[in-house]
Amino acid sequence: MRYELYYWPMLQGRGEFVRLALEDAGADYVDVARQANGMAAMQALMADPSGDAADAAPLRQPFAPPFLKAGEQWIAQTANILFFLGPRLSLAPAEEARRLFINGLQLTIADAVTEAHDTHHPIASGLYYEDQKASARVRAGDFIDTRIPKFLGYFDQVIARNPAAGGWLATPEASYADLSLFQLVEGLHYAFPRGMRDFAQRFPRVAALRRNVAARERLAAYLASRRRLPFNEQGIFRHYPELDREPAG
Amino acid sequence: MRYELYYWPMLQGRGEFVRLALEDAGADYVDVARQANGMAAMQALMADPSGDAADAAPLRQPFAPPFLKAGEQWIAQTANILFFLGPRLSLAPAEEARRLFINGLQLTIADAVTEAHDTHHPIASGLYYEDQKASARVRAGDFIDTRIPKFLGYFDQVIARNPAAGGWLATPEASYADLSLFQLVEGLHYAFPRGMRDFAQRFPRVAALRRNVAARERLAAYLASRRRLPFNEQGIFRHYPELDREPAG
Repeated sequence: MRYELYYWPMLQGRGEFVRLALEDAGADYVDVARQANGMAAMQALMADPSGDAADAAPLRQPFAPPFLKAGEQWIAQTANILFFLGPRLSLAPAEEARRLFINGLQLTIADAVTEAHDTHHPIASGLYYEDQKASARVRAGDFIDTRIPKFLGYFDQVIARNPAAGGWLATPEASYADLSLFQLVEGLHYAFPRGMRDFAQRFPRVAALRRNVAARERLAAYLASRRRLPFNEQGIFRHYPELDREPAG
Repeated sequence: MRYELYYWPMLQGRGEFVRLALEDAGADYVDVARQANGMAAMQALMADPSGDAADAAPLRQPFAPPFLKAGEQWIAQTANILFFLGPRLSLAPAEEARRLFINGLQLTIADAVTEAHDTHHPIASGLYYEDQKASARVRAGDFIDTRIPKFLGYFDQVIARNPAAGGWLATPEASYADLSLFQLVEGLHYAFPRGMRDFAQRFPRVAALRRNVAARERLAAYLASRRRLPFNEQGIFRHYPELDREPAG
C-alpha cells in the first residue's frame, strides 16, 4: 500500500504529525503536494473529491488538509489519520482499550497544538499577525505561564503512572502519540525558547521521551534529511521574539 | 452496561454531545457529577484514577472532563467517547471506512466548538470575559463573517453530496455526528441570534437536519425534560449581546 498524504508543502503544520509516523515506520508514501503540480492536484481533490468513483465521494470530502488516501479510502483530520495508521504501521496496538487511550492522548496533543497556534493568531486566522500582535502578546504569556505547564505536566504524569511502558506514554513500544508529543515539544522549543527554559527540569519524563524519539534510527535519518521542512513563520509554531519570555513566578 | 458520564454539572459544554447520544439511544447511564456528592467523586477520580485497580490506572488518566467509565474501561475526550459509543448505541456503523468518516466529521465539529468558545475567551480561559471583551468583539465578528459560513457550508455540502444518506451527514440512519451538528447549531443560535439570521436560507440542508434531530422521539423528550440543562453564560456557547451582530456583506 502506497499512502498518499495531502498537506501544504511549505510548512510542517499538522501534516508533520502524520509525516513523523510514516517516516518512523519506513512506510511507502508520497507527500503529494510537494511533488510537481502537487498543489494543484490537492486543491482539485478538495474542490471535487469524487474523482473516478463518484459513488464514493460522500465518504471523502475533507474540511481541510491534512488528509490521507489509502487506496479508495480517504481519511481527514490528523488524529483520525493517525488512528487509522497506528496499527497498520505498528505504532499502536490493535486492542481497543489501549488504542482509545492513545487516541485520547492524541486529541489532547491536538488541543495543545491549536492553543500554540492561537498564541500568534488569537483573533482570527485570516488576519495578519501584525494586526493582532497586542492580543497575541497577552495570550502567549498566559500560554507560557499556565497552559504549557498544564499540558506537559499532564503528559509527564501519564508517563510516571505507567512504569510498564518504560518511558513511553501508553505502551512498551512507542506509539504515534509518543512521536506527536516529541513534535509538540520541538515546536514549543522553536517558538518559545525562553518560555521552555528549565523544560527538562520541570518535565523530566517528557524530556527523556523527546530524546528517545529523536534517537530512533529512521526518525533521526528523517530529521537530518531535506524531507524534514524547517520550522518557519508560516506554520503553527512561530518564533516571534516579542511573544516569548520566561515563565512568571 | 450502565455507563458513567463525568462532566461539570452546571453546564451543557462538551459533555452535552455525549449526553445527546446516550439519551437518543435510550442508554442506561448516570451523569455522575449531577448526583449527590458527584462533583467530589469526579474530582477525586481525576486526582487519582487508580481506584481499586492500580494496575489499570495507566490507561485511565483523563486530561479534563468529559470522560466516560464503561465498566473497567475509561475513555476521555468527547470525540473519542463518541467513537467508542457509536456502534454500541447504534449511532455509527461498525464498518471502518464509514466509522472513520464520521469521526472526521466529529473532529471538525469539535474544532468549530473550540472556536465558538474562543469568541468570548480569545486571550485566556483563565481570565475574566470582562478583561478580554475588546478582543472578543473582534474575534466574534470574524467568527460570524468567515468561520460560521465555512463550517456550516462544509456540512451543508457533505449532506448535499450524499443523497443516499437521505439528509444525514454520512449514513441512512442518523449517526452521533448528526446529533452533534444539531447541538452545534443550537449553540450558535443561542450565542449569535443575529449572526445566525437567514441560517435556514444559507444552509438549508443543515437546517433540515436540525429539525429532524429535534423531532426524534427520545431526543425530543430529553430536550423538554429537566435533564437538559439550559444554555448559560458559564458554558461554551454564551449570549453576550455585544458580541452578536448580523453577518457583514
